[in-house]
Amino acid sequence: MNVVILAAGMGKRMQSALPKVLHPLAGKPLLQHVIETARSLAPGKLCVIYGHGGAAVPEAVGRWSESMQLGIDTALQEPQLGTGHAVMQALPKLDEGAPTLVLYGDVPLTTAASLRKLVDAAGKDKLGILTVEFSNPFGLGRIVRENGRIVRIVEEKDATDAERAIREINSGIMAIPTGHLKKWLDALSNNNAQGEYYLTDIVAQAVADGVEVVSAQPSAEWEVAGVNSKVQLAELERRHQLNVASSLLEKGVTLMDPARIDVRGELVCGRDVTIDVGCVFEGRVELADGVTVGAHSVLVDTKVGAGAQIKPFCHLEDAVVGGKSLIGPYARLRPGTELAEDVHVGNFVEIKNSKVAAHSKANHLAYVGDADVGSRVNIGAGTITCNYDGANKFRTTIEDDAFIGSDTQLVAPVTVGKGATLGAGTTLTKDAPAGKLTISRPKQMTIEGWQRPVKVKK
Amino acid sequence: MNVVILAAGMGKRMQSALPKVLHPLAGKPLLQHVIETARSLAPGKLCVIYGHGGAAVPEAVGRWSESMQLGIDTALQEPQLGTGHAVMQALPKLDEGAPTLVLYGDVPLTTAASLRKLVDAAGKDKLGILTVEFSNPFGLGRIVRENGRIVRIVEEKDATDAERAIREINSGIMAIPTGHLKKWLDALSNNNAQGEYYLTDIVAQAVADGVEVVSAQPSAEWEVAGVNSKVQLAELERRHQLNVASSLLEKGVTLMDPARIDVRGELVCGRDVTIDVGCVFEGRVELADGVTVGAHSVLVDTKVGAGAQIKPFCHLEDAVVGGKSLIGPYARLRPGTELAEDVHVGNFVEIKNSKVAAHSKANHLAYVGDADVGSRVNIGAGTITCNYDGANKFRTTIEDDAFIGSDTQLVAPVTVGKGATLGAGTTLTKDAPAGKLTISRPKQMTIEGWQRPVKVKK
Amino acid sequence: MNVVILAAGMGKRMQSALPKVLHPLAGKPLLQHVIETARSLAPGKLCVIYGHGGAAVPEAVGRWSESMQLGIDTALQEPQLGTGHAVMQALPKLDEGAPTLVLYGDVPLTTAASLRKLVDAAGKDKLGILTVEFSNPFGLGRIVRENGRIVRIVEEKDATDAERAIREINSGIMAIPTGHLKKWLDALSNNNAQGEYYLTDIVAQAVADGVEVVSAQPSAEWEVAGVNSKVQLAELERRHQLNVASSLLEKGVTLMDPARIDVRGELVCGRDVTIDVGCVFEGRVELADGVTVGAHSVLVDTKVGAGAQIKPFCHLEDAVVGGKSLIGPYARLRPGTELAEDVHVGNFVEIKNSKVAAHSKANHLAYVGDADVGSRVNIGAGTITCNYDGANKFRTTIEDDAFIGSDTQLVAPVTVGKGATLGAGTTLTKDAPAGKLTISRPKQMTIEGWQRPVKVKK
Repeated sequence: MNVVILAAGMGKRMQSALPKVLHPLAGKPLLQHVIETARSLAPGKLCVIYGHGGAAVPEAVGRWSESMQLGIDTALQEPQLGTGHAVMQALPKLDEGAPTLVLYGDVPLTTAASLRKLVDAAGKDKLGILTVEFSNPFGLGRIVRENGRIVRIVEEKDATDAERAIREINSGIMAIPTGHLKKWLDALSNNNAQGEYYLTDIVAQAVADGVEVVSAQPSAEWEVAGVNSKVQLAELERRHQLNVASSLLEKGVTLMDPARIDVRGELVCGRDVTIDVGCVFEGRVELADGVTVGAHSVLVDTKVGAGAQIKPFCHLEDAVVGGKSLIGPYARLRPGTELAEDVHVGNFVEIKNSKVAAHSKANHLAYVGDADVGSRVNIGAGTITCNYDGANKFRTTIEDDAFIGSDTQLVAPVTVGKGATLGAGTTLTKDAPAGKLTISRPKQMTIEGWQRPVKVKK
Repeated sequence: MNVVILAAGMGKRMQSALPKVLHPLAGKPLLQHVIETARSLAPGKLCVIYGHGGAAVPEAVGRWSESMQLGIDTALQEPQLGTGHAVMQALPKLDEGAPTLVLYGDVPLTTAASLRKLVDAAGKDKLGILTVEFSNPFGLGRIVRENGRIVRIVEEKDATDAERAIREINSGIMAIPTGHLKKWLDALSNNNAQGEYYLTDIVAQAVADGVEVVSAQPSAEWEVAGVNSKVQLAELERRHQLNVASSLLEKGVTLMDPARIDVRGELVCGRDVTIDVGCVFEGRVELADGVTVGAHSVLVDTKVGAGAQIKPFCHLEDAVVGGKSLIGPYARLRPGTELAEDVHVGNFVEIKNSKVAAHSKANHLAYVGDADVGSRVNIGAGTITCNYDGANKFRTTIEDDAFIGSDTQLVAPVTVGKGATLGAGTTLTKDAPAGKLTISRPKQMTIEGWQRPVKVKK
Repeated sequence: MNVVILAAGMGKRMQSALPKVLHPLAGKPLLQHVIETARSLAPGKLCVIYGHGGAAVPEAVGRWSESMQLGIDTALQEPQLGTGHAVMQALPKLDEGAPTLVLYGDVPLTTAASLRKLVDAAGKDKLGILTVEFSNPFGLGRIVRENGRIVRIVEEKDATDAERAIREINSGIMAIPTGHLKKWLDALSNNNAQGEYYLTDIVAQAVADGVEVVSAQPSAEWEVAGVNSKVQLAELERRHQLNVASSLLEKGVTLMDPARIDVRGELVCGRDVTIDVGCVFEGRVELADGVTVGAHSVLVDTKVGAGAQIKPFCHLEDAVVGGKSLIGPYARLRPGTELAEDVHVGNFVEIKNSKVAAHSKANHLAYVGDADVGSRVNIGAGTITCNYDGANKFRTTIEDDAFIGSDTQLVAPVTVGKGATLGAGTTLTKDAPAGKLTISRPKQMTIEGWQRPVKVKK
């Protein structure tokens, strides 16, 4: 099979500097949704027609082509003279022996199953159209049938009253016998108000040529909905998010509100996972059995072990959280954080590029960056790893069973030995020996005769 | 009255290790909702039929029985041979002289008022069925009436076209004259596809015995909706939350968005309370007159005094907030926090197991744990009570009018006297005398000839 | 044109100490919405009729009258004897030569366009009524027409079956030829169940006097919806917020969920602005081209420069954020914060009344208050400006290229010179000279023979 994806449109109504097909839905460009769906059909040839937006579209396609290990062709449509004209640009890239599926870079939510149905219906020598029953078909091309067979598509403005009453509409998505395609495209006329070549017009030619025109239907209207404006983008975003939520519920995930979860990527959940309201998931997130995610948390490219609790207002990115850990509320785990089992990270604590071994705790107001923390370590409130000297970053090592007193600064590179204790307020500039108390503390003094400041009149 | 609650089902579609009736809705197990509703009808006998899930269900029932001071019986149904078979298990526990109300542990939102109507309609000698008009009754047992009287219940598969058009359906909830119950149950047959004994079949027997069959109707479909999947659980959760929101609005609470408040427990509000979007309330929360709760705050088992403002992103648990206090944004009050009137707790401040007297302030980045704080105390930014020595916890006392300089550590047990001032950066290890300035501060020095680090090439 | 706004009602169902018309919708009192709409029609006279709520309403009107530089009259209606009686109170204030538009202080969302249509339809000598087709008109006054002309308004209780079938209803909003108004009001009778004088009754008089009665229609039902309860207030709040969201989408703003944005004031967006779920905007907020606002952020009276990223959980108030800056997550900018270009403010950082020049960073756990910060400054984690001595506030100055070590206290007034470095943990009480390292640091010591505390049995 060949797949041609039309992605040349300007998308003026998007009111954006970004080409329309690169606008994200669920965190991923519209066009990438379509390409990924196409890929799942294992096409022999895949060609994206671009136009507006300069090099942005072919560059993006090039990146996906590489990351998906898929040979995606591109072809420039310049000027843009309609959908038929767009498909013409792809002709030299197509395999004549296989049918050609035409998709649209701004119609992101068509399922592979629906396309498969269409391709199967069309086979090698029929023209297949993906058609949908619309509750309100106003403005859309109607499918005119005689004795059940499709005989033509009629546009709103050309339709009789009887034809306007038809609710089956043309989605534009077609599976076309490629052997006929060149001839049909050559015969297209641009003798219309817009002066464009419409792909739709090949239907009449197929009928004239005695090629059977068949159809397949998707499961819902939104599968063929296109994005021409931010209003439509928002509608499809919510439709997609509700689909994702339904799918999670069906897999047994407990969602406190299916209308208040956003998944922009892949969310993989074990059994008995509970997700509270307002959470956002980006990239690939894995939640093992029994994980709970508290309200209003944001998880990005993160893996959470079985039985861990993420409390409200957490922000986790590129992190690994061990099983049975307690995280938050208000914990921020930045990239490179790896927490082992039963680690506690509390409120207003930031951890970055650090490994923390089992049973260790940093419960309050701390910054742990570029550190290797052992097991059963207690990191006191206000502890800060001074990992940056203004030019270079250094690592801090805290060995097992160390107790770091509150408000301590660990000036890296520095090591706190196994079982060492640091007194509150210590500025640690040299290694602290294992098992001993290390402090840096001025003498406490009370100043006699000191007077409190008084409010100065201004 | 006897109440029998059927709670033996497995709930395979929940895809959970937890028995279905123990899944929470609004923070409380489904079965507990049903038991609490049953309790409000003051039944003479209350019996829960359990089965799947091992000891979990009877253990939970035992706890509720104790906490509600209600003698709840349980009976094991093993194997599970249908609803009729389930009720048989309860027979020995029932008072024959009183009618028996049959409820379902997975139908959580039936109101006591609807059940009362049903029980009143049935009286002592009639069979009462809670029936509902469904907009789409497909798949449900239809109530067949002749001359207005219920004559039988017909299942979808056995129904004629005329019967399928009936929209009044059987909810399964029944009030049964207990004197007849044993005989009717004994006569049940399991000669059906599932090989089960259906409670519904007693309706035909009642008609045959000349016992009048009457009905009552709940106010809405959701009162009889059961939970068989996470999809249905989420639907009932939202339905319940909208009911709670409506009830709050009707009591005069201002909700910025009734679709974005979650109450999992009891929320008691005074006059002129305003709750912004995204807030979650758990356990028992009281908000006195004029309280405002900012966006995305979480309050658990907390009491907030009149005129207090909770700003966005707060997390309060097991806390008391005095009137006119200003809390947050990003304030965390942990269990055992008691704030008097006009206390200010600002951003990134955590308070735990501490009492703070009137007019005191901790406005920035502080941890106050296990402390007794007097009136008009100013706790500077970065102040930390070092309440834990790695083995024991100690209290900190800060007397009235004390001024705690920024970034101070109070190494407990320690007392700051009335009107004392602590210099910034002090590590306080001994008591600070009243009215005086206490500091621990090394001399400030400037290092001559020091060179800034330079970036090391790697 | 004269505009009379009826705002005397008690609003008992609001269950509030606040007069009904002062309850906020989108952060602004209902009555202020109506006054601002009225103002856009440039009325010659504008008179608000008040009653319940004591001085609160006229005082609020006085403030708006001043701030909008609009001469708004007020008139007391005491006792409140109906809408006709209310308009009587305004009579002495009106210009007889101009028509009078009657509006309602609890009907906040009527658009100026709809009112303009009504006023244009009425002209100088016709009686104009804003009418709406309601899907369910039950309980509302129906517009009775003969040959297309309005001949009377009939109330539900007086209506025939045919009249009850009419779906066009009277909104109560009228444009009245003022020359006739006094006579018509004088002729009103209070011979009805409530004993009130109804403005509606002037329609019959107009017909009797041969004055033509015309109508105009708003675009939607909600334009004429009134607020009598918190339920209705919440409904209109959401309706308004959806309108605002639609308008933002149409201007090209990307909203991750149009149902989860709250704008209480004015939100002005450049091109390619993206706003994630759960954000709240209050006052006047400006977001320049390419700004992204992360989930669950709150922005109040704030200006954000082009390309800046506001990450999740930020709280910005009365702040200016320079272009390309990175803010948050969990950053709090308080009033008087002015950040230049490319400033980074990270997690758990609070900035207040401070100017920060380009390329400076405060990435972790810091309080910067009353400070002037130069360019390329690095403010380490845990840094605190000690700006308050308990009585007075002082400023801190940090010059270009300074490096402030972690956990440093800057005891204001104090200056850190250009290119100076402060060691970690420094308490800076005197100025730090430019280009040099300044520290205050006790010697690090390890205590031999020290024993860790052990858990005390209680």
